[in-house]
Amino acid sequence: MKSRFEELAELYKDTLLKNVIPFWEQNSVDWEKGGYFTCLDRSGRIYDTDKFIWLQNRQVWLFSMLYNKLDKRDHWLKIASNGAKFLAQHGRDLDGNWYFSLTREGNPLVQPYNIFSDCFAAMAFSQYALASGEDWAKDIALQAYNNVLRRKENPKGKYNKSYPGTRPMKALAVPMILANLSLEMAWLLQSDTLEEILDATITEVMDDFLDSERGLMLENVAPDGSQINSFEGRLINPGHGMEAMWFAIDIAQRSNNNKLINRSVDVMLNILNFAWDQEYGGLYYFMDINGNPPQQLEWNQKLWWVHLESLVGLVMGYRLTGRKECWEWYEKMHDYTWSHFSDAENGEWFGYLNRRGEVLLNLKGGKWKGCFHVPRAMYLCFQEFHKLSQNLN
Amino acid sequence: MKSRFEELAELYKDTLLKNVIPFWEQNSVDWEKGGYFTCLDRSGRIYDTDKFIWLQNRQVWLFSMLYNKLDKRDHWLKIASNGAKFLAQHGRDLDGNWYFSLTREGNPLVQPYNIFSDCFAAMAFSQYALASGEDWAKDIALQAYNNVLRRKENPKGKYNKSYPGTRPMKALAVPMILANLSLEMAWLLQSDTLEEILDATITEVMDDFLDSERGLMLENVAPDGSQINSFEGRLINPGHGMEAMWFAIDIAQRSNNNKLINRSVDVMLNILNFAWDQEYGGLYYFMDINGNPPQQLEWNQKLWWVHLESLVGLVMGYRLTGRKECWEWYEKMHDYTWSHFSDAENGEWFGYLNRRGEVLLNLKGGKWKGCFHVPRAMYLCFQEFHKLSQNLN
Repeated sequence: MKSRFEELAELYKDTLLKNVIPFWEQNSVDWEKGGYFTCLDRSGRIYDTDKFIWLQNRQVWLFSMLYNKLDKRDHWLKIASNGAKFLAQHGRDLDGNWYFSLTREGNPLVQPYNIFSDCFAAMAFSQYALASGEDWAKDIALQAYNNVLRRKENPKGKYNKSYPGTRPMKALAVPMILANLSLEMAWLLQSDTLEEILDATITEVMDDFLDSERGLMLENVAPDGSQINSFEGRLINPGHGMEAMWFAIDIAQRSNNNKLINRSVDVMLNILNFAWDQEYGGLYYFMDINGNPPQQLEWNQKLWWVHLESLVGLVMGYRLTGRKECWEWYEKMHDYTWSHFSDAENGEWFGYLNRRGEVLLNLKGGKWKGCFHVPRAMYLCFQEFHKLSQNLN
Repeated sequence: MKSRFEELAELYKDTLLKNVIPFWEQNSVDWEKGGYFTCLDRSGRIYDTDKFIWLQNRQVWLFSMLYNKLDKRDHWLKIASNGAKFLAQHGRDLDGNWYFSLTREGNPLVQPYNIFSDCFAAMAFSQYALASGEDWAKDIALQAYNNVLRRKENPKGKYNKSYPGTRPMKALAVPMILANLSLEMAWLLQSDTLEEILDATITEVMDDFLDSERGLMLENVAPDGSQINSFEGRLINPGHGMEAMWFAIDIAQRSNNNKLINRSVDVMLNILNFAWDQEYGGLYYFMDINGNPPQQLEWNQKLWWVHLESLVGLVMGYRLTGRKECWEWYEKMHDYTWSHFSDAENGEWFGYLNRRGEVLLNLKGGKWKGCFHVPRAMYLCFQEFHKLSQNLN
């Protein structure tokens, strides 16, 4: 008889390979102009052809990663290559900064106004270089990585609308993504550089962004880590906090840092207790740490990535600590997530539900949702449950 | 026996004077530092003290307007003055552009990244100059008005993130607000300048932004008025369309332009038929003209100003045309709006409801909702119903 862990490993692997990946293989690849269509409705119909750089790069990363880690399928490499070549040709301005969006043909639409396009480019081209063995891809990865390092103190550059000095603030997204990205790029970096960056980012996340009183992750704090009483300063983004914590666990497990692993699990549990909707289930998208009205009108919606990142964090935390609360929360989150977001009929998952868990937008992809969180979480949960079923820690 | 029109005139006047204005008089004025608190919860408790320039200027405008048009109450002028003096001192950068937000004390937080702060400043200081007789207020109004004229071709200036040339686009908000603003400033402008601006803006709105096939108002079009097949190009903002149409009617009635009045009423009726939620009632906040998923996650929420602008437009359209559809829609909108947004217990109206019409945010004011749409609509509807009850056209 199969164990529960074996069953779950199979569920995640099957869904990845039979439901999620086919949806993107069949509907998203623009073989004619290069790159990918991401604006796909429930059934896969293309409703917009603009190309958003975050999502283009994430899809290159995803297919390269599957090729590198799961199965050397030529078709996956060809799909990755179709995006990588399009992006190498059209994705950057003359200074090498990554645009935010392009037309279908590759003409720039929106300027490089933040560094996350560069982050995802570094991740994408690093995985693609590994998959393809192409040196030009490695060069692009390193260039994008250096952009991130150069721009991280002022990620929006000249598009920053804050008046200098009045209320300086830093965002959780920056150290978080830098940690994850540096791990991704490990094979291209000096090992002491890597360890330095990982140490610094984890320290920043756990010391500066963690509200020590309530054990919650704040989205924005002052440069010295003190709290700011403003809309931005009071903001809690539960999904982001969960993602940050599994990044931290992922880093901690490299050196068997059980203290950090347990501390990160504590924070995850605090977030879940704070952000779980007692009435309708699921995690809220945005909250004010003091219970004031948040400025985000979508605050009580249930988003796919928030729940998927939570599943990854919980199974990872459970495998490494064996803590009962992790498993109880995993099962609760599993039931909600699989019953509300998945779509057995058309493939891929819904992205946006209202507070009650009803489908809010009739889409599988758009400006912000592409081929990334669902397959990444499927792959990671498959790996975690596989290890659990084999008693591998 | 009172007529229905007399009853409605009384309802709007009473709500304005006994429910709405007292809420702001009691809770919002920062007598200590100047300006107003706008982040007020259901009962009027202050939950944030930042000062958002749009809302600060709109409140100066509102109290000055009531003083000028409804009743010469010293207290109203004093409240207007408390905002005007604070804004005159802290609201602008060295070039005279209006910031987006300030701290409670008046230190700049967010740069002048769009021209709407300047628009609302021009409106505010023009009304306040009329109310107070102060020449310095008139100068500030004219300076802000000139900023708008100077910056209207590139409203976001250096903060514009669009790549030049790929997909040029213009926004309905610009001509719309310019028309309304110029009417407000009529007493300060040369009359031929005024007529020129009004003609040009109305032509632009009705020729370029009106989708001739479906008779709906588009939010963004190409500079020549052609439609763009992108998220921005397909966007319908029903409340904005309704507001644009009553601005057009307001301008048209000055010259008894019945053709423009009837055309604007037609557009209002098209918008209402397109955007009315058949299942739960109320108007959607954002829609895609082709029925695709819009990018705004809040698309199906019901917002106070959308419904209030519709009430104003419908009663105005009815008074000037006597068309039956206007009255039927007025009654339908009235029933929905008064039963869902008003708060007899605490004063002022709720701002944000979910699709089902349940309160989504426990606030009466925030970053975008202040002392403006509710009292303005109450005043305008009171005026319209008063005229109707007196048979004044």
